[in-house]
Amino acid sequence: LSVNPQIQTVADAGERALIERIRVRAGQPSRWITTGIGDDAAVMTMNRGEVVVATADSLVEDVHFRRSWTAPRAIGQKAVAVNFSDLAAMGAAPRAVLLSLMLPPDTPLADFDAMVDGVVAECEAHGASLAGGNITSSPRVLAIDVTALGGVHPRRTLTRSGGRPGDELYLTGSIGAAATGLALLEGSVDRGTLADDLADCLRRYEAPIAHVRCGRSVAGNRAANACMDLSDGLADAARQMAQASRTGVVLEGKQLPIHAAARAWSERSGADPVASALIGGEDYELLFAVPAKRRRGFLAAVKRAQVETTRIGSLTADSRMRWVRGDDSFELPGGYAHFG
Amino acid sequence: LSVNPQIQTVADAGERALIERIRVRAGQPSRWITTGIGDDAAVMTMNRGEVVVATADSLVEDVHFRRSWTAPRAIGQKAVAVNFSDLAAMGAAPRAVLLSLMLPPDTPLADFDAMVDGVVAECEAHGASLAGGNITSSPRVLAIDVTALGGVHPRRTLTRSGGRPGDELYLTGSIGAAATGLALLEGSVDRGTLADDLADCLRRYEAPIAHVRCGRSVAGNRAANACMDLSDGLADAARQMAQASRTGVVLEGKQLPIHAAARAWSERSGADPVASALIGGEDYELLFAVPAKRRRGFLAAVKRAQVETTRIGSLTADSRMRWVRGDDSFELPGGYAHFG
Repeated sequence: LSVNPQIQTVADAGERALIERIRVRAGQPSRWITTGIGDDAAVMTMNRGEVVVATADSLVEDVHFRRSWTAPRAIGQKAVAVNFSDLAAMGAAPRAVLLSLMLPPDTPLADFDAMVDGVVAECEAHGASLAGGNITSSPRVLAIDVTALGGVHPRRTLTRSGGRPGDELYLTGSIGAAATGLALLEGSVDRGTLADDLADCLRRYEAPIAHVRCGRSVAGNRAANACMDLSDGLADAARQMAQASRTGVVLEGKQLPIHAAARAWSERSGADPVASALIGGEDYELLFAVPAKRRRGFLAAVKRAQVETTRIGSLTADSRMRWVRGDDSFELPGGYAHFG
Repeated sequence: LSVNPQIQTVADAGERALIERIRVRAGQPSRWITTGIGDDAAVMTMNRGEVVVATADSLVEDVHFRRSWTAPRAIGQKAVAVNFSDLAAMGAAPRAVLLSLMLPPDTPLADFDAMVDGVVAECEAHGASLAGGNITSSPRVLAIDVTALGGVHPRRTLTRSGGRPGDELYLTGSIGAAATGLALLEGSVDRGTLADDLADCLRRYEAPIAHVRCGRSVAGNRAANACMDLSDGLADAARQMAQASRTGVVLEGKQLPIHAAARAWSERSGADPVASALIGGEDYELLFAVPAKRRRGFLAAVKRAQVETTRIGSLTADSRMRWVRGDDSFELPGGYAHFG
């Protein structure tokens, strides 16, 4: 599409032209999408015997992002990544995305294009297609709601409720980085002067990576009893997995893979790095519950996905939710929840 | 769930309690939903050989509804109905709904419950389940984004692009009622004093009926070449179907099934009832393109669904988009588009 230099906001362009811009930017859909953008609904074929895995998550201006802080492309990319993280936690392969945009009329057209490009880039990184959605005006707030659809064979589905007492808990990557990145933005940091490790925290907050390959590899190997992602922090995830599995949980404070810059950041502000890392949200790592006899298969599966994991605790037969450090034992804190 | 009389807003209740309220209100999911509310994603099984049909549509406060005009239950119901209408236009059976709620913290909890009840009621009316979604706070605007998932056998899918020159156009129900209902609300009508036919217009605006049975019956009979729903008005739907099918279109002004109260309303305000009915949005009727040789099968299929249809025109071999009245011919007007 050629861009008319007179057209500067989404209101200038109009709904039909915006849909056409999305269609062009989305490119050719994958072979699973038989009807894509432009009909009443998208049509997606499944592989034989697969079930559909579906999740929706939204980013709302001034709640999840600020337009003055984060580039539109990163907003689009993150809106998809947080959904793919949910698919990864179920062991599913992302196939299609529906994009619902609620746009203030004065949204610059360049921002619109960049958001859509971010959505498409994240889809393409995981072999999925932007297949449909909806655009509407919104009087005051920009919001993006993304639905991600994936496929998985039913016996290879991971849930959060399958954990058993004695299962070992493993965590991908490291935690605390995203919360530190957010703190940097809240402190109006100058991006140009950031040390590399703090820049990494910012990247982890703004452009989280969905561990799709890891989730699928473990699920395909049937190497875990339960899995969930860490959107609202490790303490929250561990608590929810244990509740759904009707077990207790104990996390080893000394074992937690806390991001080095996040640890330094906590210490500098006088906070306990472990306590901070337990409640820090938005890391989008995966938490797995693995029976001891499947440990080797699990470690082989995560290695194939080229992801680091750390053993951080266990599910327990009692109903306590706690973390320990040496001989001290603490109740797991709550996670981030909307509306407090 | 017992209601604590101290809890009056969604912020008082908190995110987890809101999700639990939804889970309780949603009840038992249908047999297609193997993992429902409460995990990272919903899991849905398909019937053998079916494809997935997916659509998303949102209602944004002060764009699509006003909380001072419309009861929360009706808002929830409509948010689902407009999506089921899209599934109906593809010939698909609704199976699952994902509900994304973006809520100002001061949203009354009673309104939240009523919206969810409306969502669940509309799901149940069509054999679908509320299977997942997301709740987030929104600083200033209440918005509901619904994703509807359905199933259909691929050879029974209806699209808007399958029309051929010479196809007869049929329309379900009547048009103009929803636009009249909106005009009544904009005129601050007193609901208590409305005549029955105007009350029907209000109902058609606030609680549209998705013609799921009709769409499935026609699609199952393979009795139409193309179908779409009328969310943005008849002129817009006819135009889009013709464009997608690479045909022209001619509508017969005198044949249009204009709702009697809508006709009277137009005449009283000095407007041409046909022109008003062509551009009035939100009727959610279905427009079908039917080849002459399938006419009997089509009429039998809509009769089985107990829906009235009217023949209103044809797709044509030229590329003109027009409506006629006697010897006069007019260009089809544009439909409602966000951002004008």
